[in-house]
Amino acid sequence: MDKNFNYSRLKLGIIGGGQLGRIMSQKAKKMGFHVTILDPTPNCPAAQVSDKQIIAGFYDKEKLTKIVEESDVTTFELEHIDTSVLKELFDKGHNIHPSPYVMELIQNKYEQKKLLNDKGIAVPAYKDVKTQEDLASFGFPVIQKTKFGGYDGKGVQMLKTPEDMKNCIKTESFIEELVDIDKELAIIVARNIEGEIKCYPVVEMLFDERVNICDSVMAPARISKEIEEKAIEISTQSIKALDGVGIFGVELFLTKKGEVLVNEIAPRPHNSGHYTVESCATSQFEQIIRAVTNLPLGSTKLISASVMVNLLGEEGYEGEPFIEGIHEALAIPELSFHFYGKSVTKPFRKMGHITVLDDDINKALEKANKAKNILKIKGSKKI
Amino acid sequence: MDKNFNYSRLKLGIIGGGQLGRIMSQKAKKMGFHVTILDPTPNCPAAQVSDKQIIAGFYDKEKLTKIVEESDVTTFELEHIDTSVLKELFDKGHNIHPSPYVMELIQNKYEQKKLLNDKGIAVPAYKDVKTQEDLASFGFPVIQKTKFGGYDGKGVQMLKTPEDMKNCIKTESFIEELVDIDKELAIIVARNIEGEIKCYPVVEMLFDERVNICDSVMAPARISKEIEEKAIEISTQSIKALDGVGIFGVELFLTKKGEVLVNEIAPRPHNSGHYTVESCATSQFEQIIRAVTNLPLGSTKLISASVMVNLLGEEGYEGEPFIEGIHEALAIPELSFHFYGKSVTKPFRKMGHITVLDDDINKALEKANKAKNILKIKGSKKI
Repeated sequence: MDKNFNYSRLKLGIIGGGQLGRIMSQKAKKMGFHVTILDPTPNCPAAQVSDKQIIAGFYDKEKLTKIVEESDVTTFELEHIDTSVLKELFDKGHNIHPSPYVMELIQNKYEQKKLLNDKGIAVPAYKDVKTQEDLASFGFPVIQKTKFGGYDGKGVQMLKTPEDMKNCIKTESFIEELVDIDKELAIIVARNIEGEIKCYPVVEMLFDERVNICDSVMAPARISKEIEEKAIEISTQSIKALDGVGIFGVELFLTKKGEVLVNEIAPRPHNSGHYTVESCATSQFEQIIRAVTNLPLGSTKLISASVMVNLLGEEGYEGEPFIEGIHEALAIPELSFHFYGKSVTKPFRKMGHITVLDDDINKALEKANKAKNILKIKGSKKI
Repeated sequence: MDKNFNYSRLKLGIIGGGQLGRIMSQKAKKMGFHVTILDPTPNCPAAQVSDKQIIAGFYDKEKLTKIVEESDVTTFELEHIDTSVLKELFDKGHNIHPSPYVMELIQNKYEQKKLLNDKGIAVPAYKDVKTQEDLASFGFPVIQKTKFGGYDGKGVQMLKTPEDMKNCIKTESFIEELVDIDKELAIIVARNIEGEIKCYPVVEMLFDERVNICDSVMAPARISKEIEEKAIEISTQSIKALDGVGIFGVELFLTKKGEVLVNEIAPRPHNSGHYTVESCATSQFEQIIRAVTNLPLGSTKLISASVMVNLLGEEGYEGEPFIEGIHEALAIPELSFHFYGKSVTKPFRKMGHITVLDDDINKALEKANKAKNILKIKGSKKI
């Protein structure tokens, strides 16, 4: 796509139609582009706000070909997709960003870690699991992760004692040392076609212990300038190592000793970057559109501190969602309410989020926690 | 709509599918609502980002009835609509905000002015035009306005000398004294169903002299605290007088003597409030959704100063739009680019806008003017 391209009729394809695709599409539409979503669920969250949906699964070669051929540029909201056909299309000259080669590498969490390690980027100690004995290499407790397909706390488990090896993950996996974590940090990094890189502020992720899903994100993180610089440096190096174009969510561990290690990288907008919609000059969702369409990256300046809280489906409910407490919560000042238009709720399903602004991050946290205690996503059926 | 309503399946109807409806719909979708647009143009700007479009004109009683009956709440992005059928539906208990009675009053700019004047709100001197002689009542120069249907500099003209009376507006009209204007100001005012009122910051409108269309908006306005308070007071009084629910764009004249007069009121999101998307805690487009669905109003706090510039179709072009200068303009920091997805451009047609943030309003203006000189919306045909 050269610089004389007529952007007023740009056709963007997005593979994946959940909440990330939904907000990406809204930002692409803000810029006047035509958006097609590929997703197996009719009327998925992203399709509701886009021009067109191709109803197909993420391993449907024919339909993946169709969206790429119909679009001037194709990008992703998720990494679990068939890369083989996309690699062929990419090699023929179609615009697909990040490239399917980068997607393939990132799909395999073991290979991802190995590449970063090979490039001298600090990661937790890790080891491939080929035999049952490999599981015990670092002693116990130890973390076991599937190589493929894990997300939102799925595909990760702790083996506390040798006894737990009986219940270990049976698919291809690797182990990782149990890091003595002080905080979990994250940075959204953007890289465009010309190789320009921009980092967003370092944020702090807080987790729901019950299911290991990110629950809240504080922007900026409550860390020293020194740690901030280390985090930005290691994240920038990681994205350079991957050589990808788009938006990358870099999850980091800050250890109790003050080391910063890369945990993993998502090659797409990330939950830890939702806050950028209200808090930054350019949101991560607009930034990916700029990056993949060969436009200059936007400013990542933090305009206001904020806290983002995920709205997860309540335990004990499923079926059509019901938002409890919306009146009381929306009366909290500087609160922005997002709801994804999913037709059914399930326990811990990401149904929406809120972002609360305040000049003082601690006051933002206070307001966000108040809202979190009020807002409950229940369902039409008790389970 | 009571407070136990299930907001997760709220159906919103928007009459009018241009850029205002488009951004309103995006904000309603952000909150998870289902949106139907009524507009005569297939694939109009708002329909591209909404769940459903009813293709019909704004005076099509049958289709107006359909959208109201299918929606939990119906609202507007424009005031030139058939109010008779909407009044019947409103009287039967359908949720329509602002009420068709308020819409009807505002449609007639003379009656609007008379109501404000009757309530003691300062407006420019005005007089109904029944005979040719009435045109000369205030001497010359004088402003003549149509009572119905004017917008974007249309339906308004200056009669400089008695000679100009030959070319006066022939439809129902009134005259207004020519005010000695220092600045044109505007305020977006929100009022919800419970009567809660919130004002946005006072902004300054700059006009394209060639066609009398608002060209740029500076937020906040460069005025004294005293003028700011006067402007807020008069705008609040005006919306109380109208007794409407929704978002109102109040256009004001600041005279060289320091008086603040109400020019006119739009009963919907307004061009002078586009800046709120990036600059305020809650945009005018989300605020109208909150107001008409009986949710609490959001904070109108200014998070960052900004300048908005309309992107008007260049003179001499029509047909499919081509955005010239997009690469250079988007490299300007803290610039947000909006393009409305209209299929054809025309001279001075509103095709998009940009909003540029900066802590310093003068720097924001500098950056915005730079972008304005770079970005040109040309067309596929020279005319």
